[in-house]
Amino acid sequence: MERTLIKNLSENIGKAVSVSGWVSVRRDQGKLVFFEIRDRSGSVQGVVLPKSDAIEAAKGVRPEYVVSISGQVNKRPEKNVNPNVQNGDIELEIQEIEILSKAETPFELGAELNLDTYLDHLPYTVRSPRARDIFALQATIIEAFRDSLRKRDFVEFQAPAIVGGDAEGGAAAFKVDYYYDQKAYLATSPQLYKQIMVGAFERVFTTPKIWRAEKHATPRHLSELTQMDFEMGFIKDHFDVMDALETTMRDVVAVVRHKHADALQRFNVELPKLPNEKFPILKLKEAQELLGVPHEPDLEPEQERLLHEWALKEHDSDFVFVTHFPTSKRPFYTYEDPEDSGHTRYFDLLFRGLEINSGGQRVHEHDVLVERIRQKGLDPEKFAFYLQTFKVGMPPHGGCSTGLERLTARMLGLANIREATLFPRDMTRIDARLSENTEEET
Amino acid sequence: MERTLIKNLSENIGKAVSVSGWVSVRRDQGKLVFFEIRDRSGSVQGVVLPKSDAIEAAKGVRPEYVVSISGQVNKRPEKNVNPNVQNGDIELEIQEIEILSKAETPFELGAELNLDTYLDHLPYTVRSPRARDIFALQATIIEAFRDSLRKRDFVEFQAPAIVGGDAEGGAAAFKVDYYYDQKAYLATSPQLYKQIMVGAFERVFTTPKIWRAEKHATPRHLSELTQMDFEMGFIKDHFDVMDALETTMRDVVAVVRHKHADALQRFNVELPKLPNEKFPILKLKEAQELLGVPHEPDLEPEQERLLHEWALKEHDSDFVFVTHFPTSKRPFYTYEDPEDSGHTRYFDLLFRGLEINSGGQRVHEHDVLVERIRQKGLDPEKFAFYLQTFKVGMPPHGGCSTGLERLTARMLGLANIREATLFPRDMTRIDARLSENTEEET
Repeated sequence: MERTLIKNLSENIGKAVSVSGWVSVRRDQGKLVFFEIRDRSGSVQGVVLPKSDAIEAAKGVRPEYVVSISGQVNKRPEKNVNPNVQNGDIELEIQEIEILSKAETPFELGAELNLDTYLDHLPYTVRSPRARDIFALQATIIEAFRDSLRKRDFVEFQAPAIVGGDAEGGAAAFKVDYYYDQKAYLATSPQLYKQIMVGAFERVFTTPKIWRAEKHATPRHLSELTQMDFEMGFIKDHFDVMDALETTMRDVVAVVRHKHADALQRFNVELPKLPNEKFPILKLKEAQELLGVPHEPDLEPEQERLLHEWALKEHDSDFVFVTHFPTSKRPFYTYEDPEDSGHTRYFDLLFRGLEINSGGQRVHEHDVLVERIRQKGLDPEKFAFYLQTFKVGMPPHGGCSTGLERLTARMLGLANIREATLFPRDMTRIDARLSENTEEET
Repeated sequence: MERTLIKNLSENIGKAVSVSGWVSVRRDQGKLVFFEIRDRSGSVQGVVLPKSDAIEAAKGVRPEYVVSISGQVNKRPEKNVNPNVQNGDIELEIQEIEILSKAETPFELGAELNLDTYLDHLPYTVRSPRARDIFALQATIIEAFRDSLRKRDFVEFQAPAIVGGDAEGGAAAFKVDYYYDQKAYLATSPQLYKQIMVGAFERVFTTPKIWRAEKHATPRHLSELTQMDFEMGFIKDHFDVMDALETTMRDVVAVVRHKHADALQRFNVELPKLPNEKFPILKLKEAQELLGVPHEPDLEPEQERLLHEWALKEHDSDFVFVTHFPTSKRPFYTYEDPEDSGHTRYFDLLFRGLEINSGGQRVHEHDVLVERIRQKGLDPEKFAFYLQTFKVGMPPHGGCSTGLERLTARMLGLANIREATLFPRDMTRIDARLSENTEEET
């Protein structure tokens, strides 16, 4: 018999069906055996009656067994209806059970675990309702991001991962043993390639992995990340990039609202608050004055949290832009604001008090760029490939980069970015723990 | 004035507009200066009349300058209409030219170049109409692939790139200098993670980079590749995977037909031929008998080409499946056909005589898998993380992997996969050439 998905069972009342999936729960009640069976589309309760041919087989079935079941879909008697769960008004009367795979589980699926135990058992724990909520949402976010940009003529491209040097000229990069002892690294950003691609398509995006070899052990940092990057030509200034990003974020939130409102409820978090007006924008200096803190070159995590409180209170917004970081602290390709010397046309986007995106206008003039590379103590010769772009006609342009894992984590209120990362890599972990020393900074 | 995209100019006849883009061509004709201007949406001819205020500025403008132009959209006189090009019936009368960026070009854009020169100048050559056709098509392919799978309940996930060992236990992997001298490699495939994710979502896909450290120098091999992978649970056998793949390929071709028919014409290639019936399927043995060649464990490139001829002639198909490769030559997770001992439920999909996809049914029984790992001379201990999956209930499943660059290249009839790769990495190249020794195998 053709398989019926569990979400479609209620259209088959009184009919014989075949269902395949995992046994989530097995419960004995007198001579009856009850199962909760799940597949990719949902859950249903099954019952094996004492007279059923399946009763002997049923007794051997344990949680997480994979089964193929034949049975009949019945309406539940009124008193047994549970309106709060999927298929709470029906029951599958099981006539035949075929065991496709046995299971031996280390603990109950969905048990509360500390993070290391959860991660050590990912091949199992990723099946929990909580993990499936997280990664279904993540799949939606990345697709909504791409989709939003495609609608505005952005073209996807595949940024390379192996690079000849550290592209950003700043962040620590992992070294790769390449052919013939050539120096090669894992990209810390697709930045330079995005700019090159503006020359071809004006508007591009890419959703690559990037790697940071920094020795951080915090709930916010990972060694391997998924970025959602875009870059656009013919901008007037950084505000055009911020507008494009705001549109993208609003599109992402709209799709999340449409598809995952129930998951957000399960996580006890609200949908992101979007202001009626534009996202609020503060210069770094203004933000610091607002908080009554000294003029440092960057914000502390606690200050970011306070800015969120301000944005919520004053603008009913979970998002707030901070702009005009000092030139000295930003990468060489950052465009300095001619009207605010020493400060850049650069921004961070904070979402619920966490920086989830950085971007801004880039330098498009060849000679200025060479000078900036020198000022940062770098060798323009090493950027010869990239610098070609600026010799052959380059419009004013800018772009930005959103961290997929950070956005996912913040959307669901997860305390640690590792929970929003399928197979996190960090100083102490590649799948399995590399060492037991997992002390964290804050 | 707001920028008008060039594709929308014909809706603005008689009106004043502002256009931004690159100068593709500059031509002097008597006292007139003509420009061909392009932006992301298309091309248009502009003319500067001798009386125009812009005539002095126009004389300084060279190909690839980036300009912002104010002017008026005019209908061309009947005799000057060119029906074969975009905007062939209009002309932009230029009144003002602002130069956003000057350009100095090493050769004409679109000049015929040898591959190394083309690649050495990618930041420039990627702007050629040919390269833009290739990578616009590639963006469509990867999106159509994802979209087709999403429609059938496949969930996207992000496979990790840094792995603790060579996942496939076969292909040569690049070593990464990880923290504290831990052994780490670049993934040669997302295979094991796809299988893990079947446990969570039944149906998953991922479009990751993978890396092969093999010392190949052929027109078909790269060191860094983009794969389009899917994996699905509750299959009967490999035919279910082949069906899912065929649907995906047909969806991709349909979108390519819709969006890129003109590009295919420019490359002088036809749309992929799809049979009315299903894609033809041959067992490896049958294919070899058909070709009258000995029973080797794999096909030679020339034999794959001949199979394409056969598929075209007998089935009017550019696609042909070859199945049942010998177990001894396939990875440990390959499912052996119980009805054809020594041979696997595995397939290659050939597209126009090139293998663009491999896949099949996988082993889902824990103990069989452990035994297979041992038989391949590998240590099951090293696969402990992965093996958890098979202890906690795993349905029969399978999947496959399509090479994005190979598919793109074959779709457009490109002789070398490097032309279908934005920034190819190989034995002799990371952006710039690493050595002048670029001799190729065939």
